[in-house]
Amino acid sequence: MKWRRRNLLSLEDLDKEEIIHILNTTTSFKEISKRPIKKVPALRGKTIATLFLEPSTRTRASFELAAKRLSADVVSIYSSSSSILKGETLRDTARNIEAMNIDAIIIRHSSSGSPLVLSRYVKVPVINAGDGSHEHPTQALLDIYTIREKKKNLKGLKVSIIGDILHSRVARSNIWGLSKLGAKVCVCGPATLLPSEIEKLPTKVTYKIDEALKDADVVITLRIQLERQKDKFFPSLREYAREYGLNSQNIKLAKKDVLVMHPGPINRGIELSQEVADGPHSVILEQVTNGVAVRMAVLYLLLQKEGKNESAN
Amino acid sequence: MKWRRRNLLSLEDLDKEEIIHILNTTTSFKEISKRPIKKVPALRGKTIATLFLEPSTRTRASFELAAKRLSADVVSIYSSSSSILKGETLRDTARNIEAMNIDAIIIRHSSSGSPLVLSRYVKVPVINAGDGSHEHPTQALLDIYTIREKKKNLKGLKVSIIGDILHSRVARSNIWGLSKLGAKVCVCGPATLLPSEIEKLPTKVTYKIDEALKDADVVITLRIQLERQKDKFFPSLREYAREYGLNSQNIKLAKKDVLVMHPGPINRGIELSQEVADGPHSVILEQVTNGVAVRMAVLYLLLQKEGKNESAN
Amino acid sequence: MKWRRRNLLSLEDLDKEEIIHILNTTTSFKEISKRPIKKVPALRGKTIATLFLEPSTRTRASFELAAKRLSADVVSIYSSSSSILKGETLRDTARNIEAMNIDAIIIRHSSSGSPLVLSRYVKVPVINAGDGSHEHPTQALLDIYTIREKKKNLKGLKVSIIGDILHSRVARSNIWGLSKLGAKVCVCGPATLLPSEIEKLPTKVTYKIDEALKDADVVITLRIQLERQKDKFFPSLREYAREYGLNSQNIKLAKKDVLVMHPGPINRGIELSQEVADGPHSVILEQVTNGVAVRMAVLYLLLQKEGKNESAN
Repeated sequence: MKWRRRNLLSLEDLDKEEIIHILNTTTSFKEISKRPIKKVPALRGKTIATLFLEPSTRTRASFELAAKRLSADVVSIYSSSSSILKGETLRDTARNIEAMNIDAIIIRHSSSGSPLVLSRYVKVPVINAGDGSHEHPTQALLDIYTIREKKKNLKGLKVSIIGDILHSRVARSNIWGLSKLGAKVCVCGPATLLPSEIEKLPTKVTYKIDEALKDADVVITLRIQLERQKDKFFPSLREYAREYGLNSQNIKLAKKDVLVMHPGPINRGIELSQEVADGPHSVILEQVTNGVAVRMAVLYLLLQKEGKNESAN
Repeated sequence: MKWRRRNLLSLEDLDKEEIIHILNTTTSFKEISKRPIKKVPALRGKTIATLFLEPSTRTRASFELAAKRLSADVVSIYSSSSSILKGETLRDTARNIEAMNIDAIIIRHSSSGSPLVLSRYVKVPVINAGDGSHEHPTQALLDIYTIREKKKNLKGLKVSIIGDILHSRVARSNIWGLSKLGAKVCVCGPATLLPSEIEKLPTKVTYKIDEALKDADVVITLRIQLERQKDKFFPSLREYAREYGLNSQNIKLAKKDVLVMHPGPINRGIELSQEVADGPHSVILEQVTNGVAVRMAVLYLLLQKEGKNESAN
Repeated sequence: MKWRRRNLLSLEDLDKEEIIHILNTTTSFKEISKRPIKKVPALRGKTIATLFLEPSTRTRASFELAAKRLSADVVSIYSSSSSILKGETLRDTARNIEAMNIDAIIIRHSSSGSPLVLSRYVKVPVINAGDGSHEHPTQALLDIYTIREKKKNLKGLKVSIIGDILHSRVARSNIWGLSKLGAKVCVCGPATLLPSEIEKLPTKVTYKIDEALKDADVVITLRIQLERQKDKFFPSLREYAREYGLNSQNIKLAKKDVLVMHPGPINRGIELSQEVADGPHSVILEQVTNGVAVRMAVLYLLLQKEGKNESAN
């Protein structure tokens, strides 16, 4: 397959073949980070701009590492305290970045749809590193890669996503990606944290964790954003942990070889008990490792394409 | 011509030949940023320190890109929250940076004259990235480069600078640079934003925008610092926009092929109307592109010289 | 000697031979920073994470320069505003960093012992860049390197450390390192700034600066943390300067060729008078230069070892 897309904005956009192509490309990049010299010249002389308008350390570091291991230069053009907040429009920001002959823009933004808007203003690839409660495609790709690595085939697997579905771009990207690869997705959380439009997405919905866990092949737990607790989506953290936390008891409902996942950072004792987080089912650290490889694959596919276009034009 | 200066502190300092030498050098670097591999080894193994004691995203990113495309290493030594504010003198800061075998220092500072002071304490090149309301030489160089690229020769061109002249280091650097290359400079703004010492600079002064626009070859609009509006230099933004904003009506007073420039970020609807900002006369994005090339030329000229000195000594 | 340690956590841990091995390695790296091309490929393709949970500009810049001059990639994984403060445990942070195939972690933390704790959670080298009031081993190594460079042999030298011993990790690391190399260490400060457990360390203790200065070969002055003055460890800065400040009068008590040192940034007129800070005895800027070289040596020794282990396993 030849990669044709300019941007990575969402998994809703991609078809099954495109997702599989990214996953296959990831495998060839994963090996690089294990070498003593973990650097290849694939993107030497390319400049990648990070435009993180929401705080992030992990995703940003993971993208930065991915870019550097491909020998690209990374420039942090705007941060949360910058011009974009001083009244400059996203359009002007975008076109200014492009005018500096940047080869790709990685954007995180608190408003859903911002990466799409940005991509309309520029000709270079735009990568969505999380937009509002819309999508976080590279997180879902690394989740799917991790599942595929362990289970070989996603077809027919029961994958349950538990927690704050309402605010979770990770959930939304996973629902699209997993269902396209044939998994049976189930989302589960308190009614206050399940968005009403969830019915339109390719997923089952339940309020009962037991139902979600029953015979699950994979359980993806989501981070409770403690800072949102003021809005009282659930009575208390203790209550949340008791009703929706994964622990060594309720995990027995799942399949024996269930995978336990979490996008991090974990609130230990809330989404996951200590034993489950560090237990034999947990592949949480492998997710982190795969994250760098997935992002290398995405940068490579989008920027290589860009390079070919340039020489073609 | 052989470059002999150690620092780039102001355009007032430079003579016509030196400015032209930088502009000519810029042309050879501009092409690099258009290549698929936009990197040359010119400054490999050099270390450049950025000392930005005032917030900046664009200028800093532009310098950082310029340095990286020349293969130099960039280290951000001090930021606004650092030791220099904890009572350390600029002299100690400077000598500490130099002691780490840094090859050049790029400084932005809220006090006019700081780069000059700094340059007296160190032996390495100092580049002024904007000091108080004094000068911002690389911004003026990129403005002049852009004009020269479009108009071939600056001699006799009418260049009008409109807006907050009082606080503008961009205006001051442009007045010096443009007039040295033979342009007829005119500054225009509300009386409260025209400094009294402006009479001593090589520029005409007017309060009437029509007079400034009349037959102008180039109009440089300056950013209104909204945060200074509390000092009430003019009654209201709406009033400013009506009196001193460039729009599709008053621009007709200028020459047909007038260039419209702005150092960014633009307050759309204030300094420039939407139509003018994006219209056929606007070269604002070309300014941004040329900014990287000008900074590559400046870094190259100052650090190459340094290299030669070292081998000579 | 073959380097065998994985981490650099403290000088208390190291034996004399290990310290000397680092100092000898430093000499071979010091020369690199004086070359026109100050870069060697020793750590190309290695990724080093900086985890500075306390503000720092100098130490961070010095480590970053050291890493870059060895061609390593540096990624700032967590800063003071990051996940680690949002309830993530240091263990999860550490294991996440490691999962990204990082080759070494440089940590600064306000809690004594954090680097040790971190090193238990990961397999990669951990370098202590200052932990609470415990140790700051690379600062002491650069101090010792500077003394050795000037005095050839530390054996029998009288080295007096003056100031806020209570809060000083620099003092603690120096006491261990200097005494292991045979120097006679003396600490001096107001009683309120001398910790009670100091009696257990290999150092003399005095409250009288004259006693500390008498026949001293080296005087290390420590920075007074102005922000701690609210705790009233001494009546006033003026009083501190009069009682414990080094000046051109009291320095006459020391040996004629005494070295004056300070870890920076200096409060001029408090710890050191203007004349002494810039006088012939001061080697303060040489400390800064040596700091980069010492850190290059430490990174090289720890990561080369790592490399060998990898190929051996």
